[in-house]
Amino acid sequence: MPINRQIVLDNRPAGEATVNNFRLVTSQTPAPQPGQVLVRHHYLSLDPYMRGRMNDSKSYAQPQPLGQVMLGGTVGEVLESRHPQFKPGDMVLGAGGWQEFSVVDAGTPGALSKLDAAAQVPLSYYLGALGMPGVTAWYGLVKIIEPRAGQTVVVSAATGAVGSAFAALAKTRGCRAVGIAGGPDKCRYAVEELGFDVCIDHRLHTDIKSMSGALKDACPQGIDGYFENVGGHILDAVLLRSNAFARIAVCGMIAGYDGTPLPLRNPALILTNRLKVQGFIVGEHQEVWPPALAELTALAASGKLRPRETIAQGIESAPQAFLGLLKGRNFGKQLVKLV
Amino acid sequence: MPINRQIVLDNRPAGEATVNNFRLVTSQTPAPQPGQVLVRHHYLSLDPYMRGRMNDSKSYAQPQPLGQVMLGGTVGEVLESRHPQFKPGDMVLGAGGWQEFSVVDAGTPGALSKLDAAAQVPLSYYLGALGMPGVTAWYGLVKIIEPRAGQTVVVSAATGAVGSAFAALAKTRGCRAVGIAGGPDKCRYAVEELGFDVCIDHRLHTDIKSMSGALKDACPQGIDGYFENVGGHILDAVLLRSNAFARIAVCGMIAGYDGTPLPLRNPALILTNRLKVQGFIVGEHQEVWPPALAELTALAASGKLRPRETIAQGIESAPQAFLGLLKGRNFGKQLVKLV
Repeated sequence: MPINRQIVLDNRPAGEATVNNFRLVTSQTPAPQPGQVLVRHHYLSLDPYMRGRMNDSKSYAQPQPLGQVMLGGTVGEVLESRHPQFKPGDMVLGAGGWQEFSVVDAGTPGALSKLDAAAQVPLSYYLGALGMPGVTAWYGLVKIIEPRAGQTVVVSAATGAVGSAFAALAKTRGCRAVGIAGGPDKCRYAVEELGFDVCIDHRLHTDIKSMSGALKDACPQGIDGYFENVGGHILDAVLLRSNAFARIAVCGMIAGYDGTPLPLRNPALILTNRLKVQGFIVGEHQEVWPPALAELTALAASGKLRPRETIAQGIESAPQAFLGLLKGRNFGKQLVKLV
Repeated sequence: MPINRQIVLDNRPAGEATVNNFRLVTSQTPAPQPGQVLVRHHYLSLDPYMRGRMNDSKSYAQPQPLGQVMLGGTVGEVLESRHPQFKPGDMVLGAGGWQEFSVVDAGTPGALSKLDAAAQVPLSYYLGALGMPGVTAWYGLVKIIEPRAGQTVVVSAATGAVGSAFAALAKTRGCRAVGIAGGPDKCRYAVEELGFDVCIDHRLHTDIKSMSGALKDACPQGIDGYFENVGGHILDAVLLRSNAFARIAVCGMIAGYDGTPLPLRNPALILTNRLKVQGFIVGEHQEVWPPALAELTALAASGKLRPRETIAQGIESAPQAFLGLLKGRNFGKQLVKLV
């Protein structure tokens, strides 16, 4: 059995997460038992939700246990199988975590799914546009924002995996799609490649008043839907520019993940604008995955959804790449390539 | 035509509202023209939403114009009619405002509705439990919170007109109903008369931590629904005690009506607890009024809904009574008796 390099959570962050919270360990991969499959990971997905799990606080997910391999989505290849539905060479999607190999109970529902070898889609897409982030964008837009053609929808972290899918899904529905991203390169990419009508550079608008003014220019008809990945002053400004009956899908608040919570300045706007503000976790809505993935796959196949990726090389690079993601240093979906 | 005493908005509050923002004026009541009806008001309704209209800021309603009669709901008696559907002696519900008489275009939809003389219900109830506040409680509970039997629902300002109706509606649905009110008298009344299972005295819990502890004791199974009338630290504490997928109906944020907005301390809880937070204005949902009023009338007739009233006497007492309402000095529905 191969030697397995793994990243474990060594200790919890006090405030900002650092590389010293992680530790690289080496172990012997166990031989698969009956019902198990040995997978060699090709790509590891890095996602903002992982930061929340590093804290030891009440959340929707159990905290990441100390000393254990960090959880995370992976795509890889079956090397050895003792489960009748998998054979060596199968490409599979799973939650193998921050390591090079995993041994999986393949019969556990949702543990491992075989990928369509004929789909002509890059393997890595199954961790982004055609995976959890894509379905996340779909759920927030279709099930919470429920936009009508002609309405204006806004998304923060616009060039990330979720934002890229959001743009394609919103344009397909005839919406005005407005992105918010950090820096001129990301904003240019959002408009030229992802199809946003406008993209606001949040580095130029670092307080509520300035961001509110930028949103006013970008959304002359006001905001009907907002997909929240960030929190902080951007959310405050969006509330000021919301139309009556606007819907806000709360997917993440990355701005507050390190350190103290960021307040919402004026929640009374929820009343005066009759807003619906709703949080969700896409893993709790399995019923939407098939229709969401069908639409996303069609968009990718037709070239309307062409997500960018930032790829770090080797498992040892995962902690630094993850911290960069939290700072917005990635461009598009952040992955780690392991082969 | 009778002499009409009226309260007009003289100037806008700078921070806290005071009696000096209002002015009593006297005018000659005009004679009704064809299609108009002259109404003598018996009761004027005082409601927290009126404070918002005193400000000159963007809200769901137009600001109250300076120098004009304060808007407000009224019940009264037709003295003279030049509209075929009304005759002298009819009892009517309308929006006559803070004055003793009004001349109404009776054909305008929603301007005036005839009350059922056979209903054996006190006239004043049509401004409270069987009027806008009752329907407000119904909409928030039934359409936003959508509780199932056995779930725990919480309401702030529990002994007010909305809270009283909320308790009766929640108990009918098999919920655990928890009230929050100010002072031991109101809390005792909430439990003994209104049917709340428990009532928390917010004067004993003036910070998030203390209120959160009180909610933990009062809601051993967590909070599934919250009807928000108040805002501030109570809302912060409710978020800490919310179950996954809890629903928060935002009807008012009276704590922030004077002065600067009260922030929401940790909006990330909307995500981690997958909450739905939704603002609403009941006047925008006319379709629910008939079923809501039917249920509320049945509850009042059976004695399950027995709202208390605080009645000020004479139009000149309206400003002081209104300021008392904002401070929680009323007990139950605040009215002004005008005859």
